[in-house]
Amino acid sequence: MPELRKDPVVGRWVIISTERSRRPSNFIPETLPPSQSFSPFALGREDMTPPEVYAVRPGGGKPNTPGWQVRVVPNKFPALEVEGQLDRRGEGVYDKMNGIGAHEVVIEGPDPDLQLADMPVEQIQQVLMAYRERMLDLKKDPRLRYVLVFKNHGAGAGATLAHSHSQIIATPIIPRMVQEELDGAKAYFQLKERCVFTDILDQELAEGNGRRVVSTTGRYVAIAPFASRFPFETWILPRERRSSFHTIDDAAEFLDLARILKDTLQRLNVALDSPPYNFVLHTAPLGENDLPYFHWHLEIMPKLTRVAGFELGSGFYINPTPPEDAAQYLREIVALT
Amino acid sequence: MPELRKDPVVGRWVIISTERSRRPSNFIPETLPPSQSFSPFALGREDMTPPEVYAVRPGGGKPNTPGWQVRVVPNKFPALEVEGQLDRRGEGVYDKMNGIGAHEVVIEGPDPDLQLADMPVEQIQQVLMAYRERMLDLKKDPRLRYVLVFKNHGAGAGATLAHSHSQIIATPIIPRMVQEELDGAKAYFQLKERCVFTDILDQELAEGNGRRVVSTTGRYVAIAPFASRFPFETWILPRERRSSFHTIDDAAEFLDLARILKDTLQRLNVALDSPPYNFVLHTAPLGENDLPYFHWHLEIMPKLTRVAGFELGSGFYINPTPPEDAAQYLREIVALT
Repeated sequence: MPELRKDPVVGRWVIISTERSRRPSNFIPETLPPSQSFSPFALGREDMTPPEVYAVRPGGGKPNTPGWQVRVVPNKFPALEVEGQLDRRGEGVYDKMNGIGAHEVVIEGPDPDLQLADMPVEQIQQVLMAYRERMLDLKKDPRLRYVLVFKNHGAGAGATLAHSHSQIIATPIIPRMVQEELDGAKAYFQLKERCVFTDILDQELAEGNGRRVVSTTGRYVAIAPFASRFPFETWILPRERRSSFHTIDDAAEFLDLARILKDTLQRLNVALDSPPYNFVLHTAPLGENDLPYFHWHLEIMPKLTRVAGFELGSGFYINPTPPEDAAQYLREIVALT
Repeated sequence: MPELRKDPVVGRWVIISTERSRRPSNFIPETLPPSQSFSPFALGREDMTPPEVYAVRPGGGKPNTPGWQVRVVPNKFPALEVEGQLDRRGEGVYDKMNGIGAHEVVIEGPDPDLQLADMPVEQIQQVLMAYRERMLDLKKDPRLRYVLVFKNHGAGAGATLAHSHSQIIATPIIPRMVQEELDGAKAYFQLKERCVFTDILDQELAEGNGRRVVSTTGRYVAIAPFASRFPFETWILPRERRSSFHTIDDAAEFLDLARILKDTLQRLNVALDSPPYNFVLHTAPLGENDLPYFHWHLEIMPKLTRVAGFELGSGFYINPTPPEDAAQYLREIVALT
């Protein structure tokens, strides 16, 4: 059983995988994922993954057989385990609990060679809707307080398989960085009785401004954040406040989101020669359906620089590309979608 | 002039380098540092760096000439600039100030091929004393509130030059992660009237425990922290509380620290085949000489896994090697020093 351990000074939780403890010799040098020629996620290899928990099968068909367009399966090597009790306990000055949670893989399409940015928008829409469906299902488990959706694309961003996929980790605690956003946004709301994300969007979209806007659609905005940590970091936010991703109930809203996501990824691909990237979805905790001070948002971070000692040790970042410049480069790319 | 920008939601500060803005085409794939055959830090090339701000010259001699053992110079491409005023100002919802600060390079020895772990302890002692001297000097500048000493060793850890060196960044704000440690330690002290670091050390060194202890000397302890973020993360702490590194005033104390640092780096080198690593020195802010709730400490983080989407998006880490296992592997290595 993996353990969740809390740092006694800063309160940071860490997942310690006790099951698959890695010995010194297991830390082989970083390598590229294996060739595309073999993917355990491909059509017809459904028995190579744990049984699916969700799938889109337009033509019907039995679970764990071909015919799917999007497929969600438990991670074969999960960081957290679904079975068991939290069992919070102390060890002298320390606190820990069992590593209860869910760790799932969203296989974004059947083609091992087609990456998310290159999929049709309707396929991307299905992927985004799969995130929501899994959130709604995981929300039923009272032990779980948060669902984090993220994607590692490319070896440089931590992907170990090239077949296009994202991941879902559901945790019994609210992740530190999300909690900090919630706390910061709440403090702002208490001071001003306004949502900080709304104020940000109003300022970024104001007439004569727009220096950090990458693109817009009817419902969404892609911006290079004022205090971007990474070069070409880009956030997608809904124009209208919605604190929880899982409350999106309109297929057209997902289609519009798929459009701006594809457009943003394509712009990054053209500008930066298809860089590795991570994205993470920040949404309200599972128990909160409508926070007046929060917008869910997607943070896309191309992996162009290494996080080194200064960032690790200080928590502040050195970004060599001003977001105004990044947004301009990205805006100038002729949209391909 | 670089800018310090504050994230309006979480309050995280970011350094935006406006001077040397990197265009998309500047983000070349990560490469190894150039061959050892040319080092701008080597003996006789003193004019290739900005003029030195500190040097150890046992035989005397003029500044910026050969004869030095340790040499500290301003970074040729500084993230922050020394000249100017902070000029704190707003931009609508956002806050920013000029990127005032110091960014220096500590050249740890004249030999371009000799890495810190392989240097004689007396040389490492000189490096550690150079950190203190720079802290004492930077402390005189009232604009500066913190000095962060860190080291990137190896391309995988963000080093761009192979010649053994560490870096110093002095900032007008207290780095977020240090502030979190200070806040956490202060809250613990207010609750218990004890220092959390002392409690940790007491527990780790207690008879019959010691599972996370890597090694000890008369004055220092190296441990694998209970909630290690990274495999083989190792912290060096003074046994007796001392909150500020710059208050060490005894050469023997530096020699003992040099011994345990060399020993730890050597153990990591043997266990993990000379991995890239980062270390960071956490000490009290410049204005605080003696905090009753804090121990300065050195955090050493071998770079064995990639920080990916989950860590970036949640701020919690998945560590595949329990610290008890890591400490055992490191303890079992026959010390080479």
